[in-house]
Amino acid sequence: MSDKNKNEHIENAPDYKALKVNSGISKPPSINPRIADRLKMKKRKKHTVDDFVKGILDGNMAILSQAITLVESAKFEHQKIAQEIIERCLPHSGKSTRIGITGVPGAGKSTFIEAFGKHVTSMGHKLAVLAIDPSSERTKGSILGDKTRMEELAVDPHAYIRPSPSAGSLGGVARKTRESLILCEAAGFDTILIETVGVGQSETAVHSMVDFFLLIQIAGAGDELQGIKRGIMEMADAIAINKCDGSNVTKAQLARVQFENALHLFPLSPSQWSPKVLTCSSIEKKGVDDIWNTIMDYCKHTFENGYFDNRRSEQAKYWMYETINEQLRDNFYHDNVIKNMIPDFETKVLNDEMSSFIAAYKLLNTYYDQVKNKE
Amino acid sequence: MSDKNKNEHIENAPDYKALKVNSGISKPPSINPRIADRLKMKKRKKHTVDDFVKGILDGNMAILSQAITLVESAKFEHQKIAQEIIERCLPHSGKSTRIGITGVPGAGKSTFIEAFGKHVTSMGHKLAVLAIDPSSERTKGSILGDKTRMEELAVDPHAYIRPSPSAGSLGGVARKTRESLILCEAAGFDTILIETVGVGQSETAVHSMVDFFLLIQIAGAGDELQGIKRGIMEMADAIAINKCDGSNVTKAQLARVQFENALHLFPLSPSQWSPKVLTCSSIEKKGVDDIWNTIMDYCKHTFENGYFDNRRSEQAKYWMYETINEQLRDNFYHDNVIKNMIPDFETKVLNDEMSSFIAAYKLLNTYYDQVKNKE
Repeated sequence: MSDKNKNEHIENAPDYKALKVNSGISKPPSINPRIADRLKMKKRKKHTVDDFVKGILDGNMAILSQAITLVESAKFEHQKIAQEIIERCLPHSGKSTRIGITGVPGAGKSTFIEAFGKHVTSMGHKLAVLAIDPSSERTKGSILGDKTRMEELAVDPHAYIRPSPSAGSLGGVARKTRESLILCEAAGFDTILIETVGVGQSETAVHSMVDFFLLIQIAGAGDELQGIKRGIMEMADAIAINKCDGSNVTKAQLARVQFENALHLFPLSPSQWSPKVLTCSSIEKKGVDDIWNTIMDYCKHTFENGYFDNRRSEQAKYWMYETINEQLRDNFYHDNVIKNMIPDFETKVLNDEMSSFIAAYKLLNTYYDQVKNKE
Repeated sequence: MSDKNKNEHIENAPDYKALKVNSGISKPPSINPRIADRLKMKKRKKHTVDDFVKGILDGNMAILSQAITLVESAKFEHQKIAQEIIERCLPHSGKSTRIGITGVPGAGKSTFIEAFGKHVTSMGHKLAVLAIDPSSERTKGSILGDKTRMEELAVDPHAYIRPSPSAGSLGGVARKTRESLILCEAAGFDTILIETVGVGQSETAVHSMVDFFLLIQIAGAGDELQGIKRGIMEMADAIAINKCDGSNVTKAQLARVQFENALHLFPLSPSQWSPKVLTCSSIEKKGVDDIWNTIMDYCKHTFENGYFDNRRSEQAKYWMYETINEQLRDNFYHDNVIKNMIPDFETKVLNDEMSSFIAAYKLLNTYYDQVKNKE
């Protein structure tokens, strides 16, 4: 219904005379149209792929940020440039320690990353902090978005903080983060932190792109594991009991013992590394160095037994297949005809009117007919 | 190379005179050709879909078996009939208790199923035992294939034992088992056991088609969890410590306490059911009734809180999507052009000569071109 019709409707309604709305005038533009045109022209001056690659290899943070923006863009032309940049940066990537960090909200991940990050840069390392948080679109609450919690690190010239790409499926978000990781490495960052929230499937995605996986926990009343999703503890190469300060010290040390006992129940991972449990205080900056040393021990251990390189190779392969599988699904479920058919088929399956398999095959046949008839 | 050429090759080789092979005469057929023809003619008398559906609903085990053979067949025409049969049986299915059973080899699953099955049929229930064991093709070692371990149950007129479909991917094998389950229910079986080996991904498949998941364990020397894959214990609605007999009783009871403690570390599942740990002896047929009662308690509990029906619906939906996703992958990876391209692309990705994503997209583009050009 247009605005005009709406007004007529109200005017014609005898009981609603008080609601009579005069038709207004159009609002003037909030920006001088000439300036807007000039701004658009300015935007059009784009970097070439060469500019991007050179900028990234020179460690130019502004160019790196713009390249990552292209990686995160959903536009086809941006993706095309992004993929070229990644391809050219690939030979310069791989020379970093990739660390995954997770923990439930409230475990103090931001303050931990601040303390840990400052420790890392103080040793002369260059640190990039990325994130995978597919919930951030909904909640707008990506922890890294809130840089105020990382005041010192945010202004550290040897640190680069990039919030989670906010749009798309988990697979898409994870892919973008892994591509950004490659660009950060090419830009000279030798330590990459990838942060996520310990409440979902995103841990698996992070786990499949890092060398070391750190779980941040806090001491509770015996139910430390309740907050964390099933399976996440089994991925951890180390658990850090955070907030081990003030009146919390005894509780944190007790939690440490409990976690150590629990970890013994799990079979040893193929890395032949037995996960460590440590305590730390992000506020008092205590124990953060131990965590760094543990990561270095782990790298040495897995370098020596060959697991480090094997895993990197397996991860590259994994992402090839994962991208294929995700794209196959994406193409199917985003097909307009399929999208319209699915709700009805789902209802029939739920009501036992159609078997799951027949529903699947009918949808698949329709889909492949679609593909064949497309230009 | 034909046999004739092979012989020529040997005859022409001057150094291998001792190997000279006289060309033999063709072997007579091992079966009288006329009888073979008659047998073939007999085979050609096929049941119609109506025959199958009527036979199944009448509880005719021979017809049920033939229908399951069609379900398991890879032939297109068999699949077509099978799908029609399933569709017609679907309204008569769903009225059974579906129980998944897993445990590492050596835990005594076969003897347990024998004892448990006899208990179930002695109460007047009709029991079907199916299996998912994707390894059976390789090892020819499907436990259910070895019916000699279930002597009593194999001849019980109220029990039907069907070994695991032996060909295909896990997804394919699982799909076939779920379809067979529907036919068994339509044939009047009110208790379905689906058995699998606790060493891989097949547990997830079984878990997604049963109401109750039982893990069979045995007492060991404190490392009870070592044999079982990560994540499987978290799926269990009950753990049965088997072989609690003779000199093993104390150890089994200790193991029971250890498992109970370990289970407390996991968060409660959405069913709001806290997993039970029980001991039993399949040989002495002790504790088997407790396990049956526990399953009944579980069903009552989840009927009342609505979880039972919700989960069945979720499973039907899951299998629709799972079938679609699996078929999309299957079509892609079985495409001949793609099959030939993948090894080279994989090598390039492993050697960092190509990014995982570019490799994926190049393969995908080739694939969709293939699909469009196919008849």
